[in-house]
Amino acid sequence: MSIAPAIPHVIDRATCTALDAADPLAGHRELFDLPEGVVYLDGNSLGALPRATAARVQRVIAEEWGTGLIRSWNDAGWFTKPIDLGDRIAPLIGAAAGEVVLGDSTSGSLFQVAVAAARLRPERRVIVSELGNFPTDLYVLESVQELVGEPGRPLERRLIGGDGIPGPTLADVLDDDVAVVVLTHVNYRTGRMYDMNEVTRQVQAAGAIMVWDLCHSVGAVPVDLNGAGADFAIGCTYKYLNGGPGSPSFIWAAERHHPEARPAITAWHGHAKPFDFDVEYAPAPGITRFRVGTPQLLSVAALEASLDIWRDVDLELLREKSLRLTELFISLVDSRLAPWGIEVVTPRQSARRGSQVALRAGGADGYAVMQALIERGVIGDFRAPDLMRFGFTPLYVSHADVWDAVATLEDILSTEVWRDSRFARRGAVT
Amino acid sequence: MSIAPAIPHVIDRATCTALDAADPLAGHRELFDLPEGVVYLDGNSLGALPRATAARVQRVIAEEWGTGLIRSWNDAGWFTKPIDLGDRIAPLIGAAAGEVVLGDSTSGSLFQVAVAAARLRPERRVIVSELGNFPTDLYVLESVQELVGEPGRPLERRLIGGDGIPGPTLADVLDDDVAVVVLTHVNYRTGRMYDMNEVTRQVQAAGAIMVWDLCHSVGAVPVDLNGAGADFAIGCTYKYLNGGPGSPSFIWAAERHHPEARPAITAWHGHAKPFDFDVEYAPAPGITRFRVGTPQLLSVAALEASLDIWRDVDLELLREKSLRLTELFISLVDSRLAPWGIEVVTPRQSARRGSQVALRAGGADGYAVMQALIERGVIGDFRAPDLMRFGFTPLYVSHADVWDAVATLEDILSTEVWRDSRFARRGAVT
Repeated sequence: MSIAPAIPHVIDRATCTALDAADPLAGHRELFDLPEGVVYLDGNSLGALPRATAARVQRVIAEEWGTGLIRSWNDAGWFTKPIDLGDRIAPLIGAAAGEVVLGDSTSGSLFQVAVAAARLRPERRVIVSELGNFPTDLYVLESVQELVGEPGRPLERRLIGGDGIPGPTLADVLDDDVAVVVLTHVNYRTGRMYDMNEVTRQVQAAGAIMVWDLCHSVGAVPVDLNGAGADFAIGCTYKYLNGGPGSPSFIWAAERHHPEARPAITAWHGHAKPFDFDVEYAPAPGITRFRVGTPQLLSVAALEASLDIWRDVDLELLREKSLRLTELFISLVDSRLAPWGIEVVTPRQSARRGSQVALRAGGADGYAVMQALIERGVIGDFRAPDLMRFGFTPLYVSHADVWDAVATLEDILSTEVWRDSRFARRGAVT
Repeated sequence: MSIAPAIPHVIDRATCTALDAADPLAGHRELFDLPEGVVYLDGNSLGALPRATAARVQRVIAEEWGTGLIRSWNDAGWFTKPIDLGDRIAPLIGAAAGEVVLGDSTSGSLFQVAVAAARLRPERRVIVSELGNFPTDLYVLESVQELVGEPGRPLERRLIGGDGIPGPTLADVLDDDVAVVVLTHVNYRTGRMYDMNEVTRQVQAAGAIMVWDLCHSVGAVPVDLNGAGADFAIGCTYKYLNGGPGSPSFIWAAERHHPEARPAITAWHGHAKPFDFDVEYAPAPGITRFRVGTPQLLSVAALEASLDIWRDVDLELLREKSLRLTELFISLVDSRLAPWGIEVVTPRQSARRGSQVALRAGGADGYAVMQALIERGVIGDFRAPDLMRFGFTPLYVSHADVWDAVATLEDILSTEVWRDSRFARRGAVT
């Protein structure tokens, strides 16, 4: 239960610092090493560095690797880390112990899971996703369509619209041919959030398998996969979970699917008896069969340090603060940036919003505005063709940060400094 | 060119220290943090810790992640690291710049490559490998057979024997149906090395695609993929390259295959324009198309530190020292351990030997003997059912280490201390 006050009608910076003073999660900011003078609103792309991470990784390097050497596979528990850390992610997504395991990259894990999902509906030949999905999900599904289908006859793809993109609805495309539906719970561009319960119900009522991509959800919004009765999910740990650049993805499979699930890649870490060195593959029981090869243990170590923080986080307070931050941001944008035609693209209805807000820059060049913001220490990012994205990580973003971000944005717009040639487009990276 | 003397006929410990004194690679040992009192002969499973690694990873954590945050994708060159480090692995395997890229786990990379290889021979329906291969290769190929084949009609598998395992020869199984041959250059159990030129020629003469697994070769023996005219290869970096536990694998594809190659998993890091966020996949030119998702950058950082060492290594000297170490070990085993029936399983012909030696323990229990060795600081490993493995990493193993290892082994055998119940079998890890 939150003890923080609601956002008052008239807001100034003092209001924001008062909200911070009453914020029960404010103390968590001290657990992160944020650079001086930076307002970091890109934790939805790469989470900030937890203070405990460096020492933890150092210990793994010096003691477990340097001194323990090969013995650490057993003595330091390296072999079971992907399962052990999966169990620590489980409570964040409404999963049970033994249902979650670490994977390689998020794309690799989606491949692993989507093939398993499609194989549960061998008579059906359609995979559904959405035009506005993060593109790698669509690219990965192209592989799945081709490999699960017959040579020269890949599975069919149907992409729904929504979230501002024209296209058919989910109801339009669901029929007896749909094997799998893969949707991203919180949209990477707009922050729009699906109703997981309702969509899962709709998909399963059509006889299809529901796969959720939780990249922009885990650690940001409440997720209850078992509550929704979903089938499979994958997610990343380097955004709101702060596992570090490229930290391992995770895979969730509902326990009821474990006995029959046949993931794409069968490899030795998913084998029932990996050290018997049998010639034939035999799947391990449970979620372990989704494992592929040797985990990248330094990245795993950083993730472990970041997961320590999550032991103490009240997920209800987290969601309350997240909504307070995004609501505050939206109301400040509305009240102060109206003269420049700045448009809030993210749903205003809180139940449909993740922990990020996207703005369309009106008459300004959103790319250049974002570069000018970054130069002044307000770090968000830009998504082509025209969205400025701001992520609000409740563990380390303060209400005063939100104030300062909007004030800086206002100054950049009013002075038109963004027109300076040094802010013109070059490349961009997620 | 080596200035070290050949191994004399009568050997004592002083002979070994003299060989060390004359060893042009002896100085490299100082680049590694080896624990006091340990003779580390398991670098063929997990390489030792380079002294520079900890600081390098610390810098990536504190500066690139902690301070640079999302900006480091561009500013610290994170996005192109898998290509940049691929270029640094290239000279170690006879590859050209632009032909090598980092992957996820080795198993994942074999999957990525084996599918691409099979797709180059769509009219053929057989994948060849060997009974004695590292099992995960066979498990991964089962996935490839099933996914590349038609539903209910997977590609066929033919496994050759050899290396002490009964079975057909390569000549026996090669015919017009064989699409791909996947062999491990240096066998993980016995250290037996294939003639890469000859085998590649034989496979390609039958119209098949040659895929080499270099896990036990790279950094241990000379490899010349382009010299052999091979098609594809994968390898791991945590053994002789010392990249750290689970450090990323690499993929090599001969440049002639780049334009047509279609890897298994199509994902955004392999897209021609990853930041255009197109709905359709379009493969990047060159080796980049083999990339999948976001690289695990802390593990990549450790690999980068270890590759710095390889800039200065003369690969001819490396091979000379490797052979001197294995020859010394074999001759000491022959001369001192004969009374206990210890058998050298690894080929005595140097051209057929990698950088490791496997022993069969005669009347003793090899597992228990290895545990007793490890307790005394001589670290090798055991591979069921009956092999003791000893890896000789020329960069940090000395001739005196070899002497001490055999002397310790002799003591354990002669005192029969290995019969103690504390050395009895439990689990074992690679």
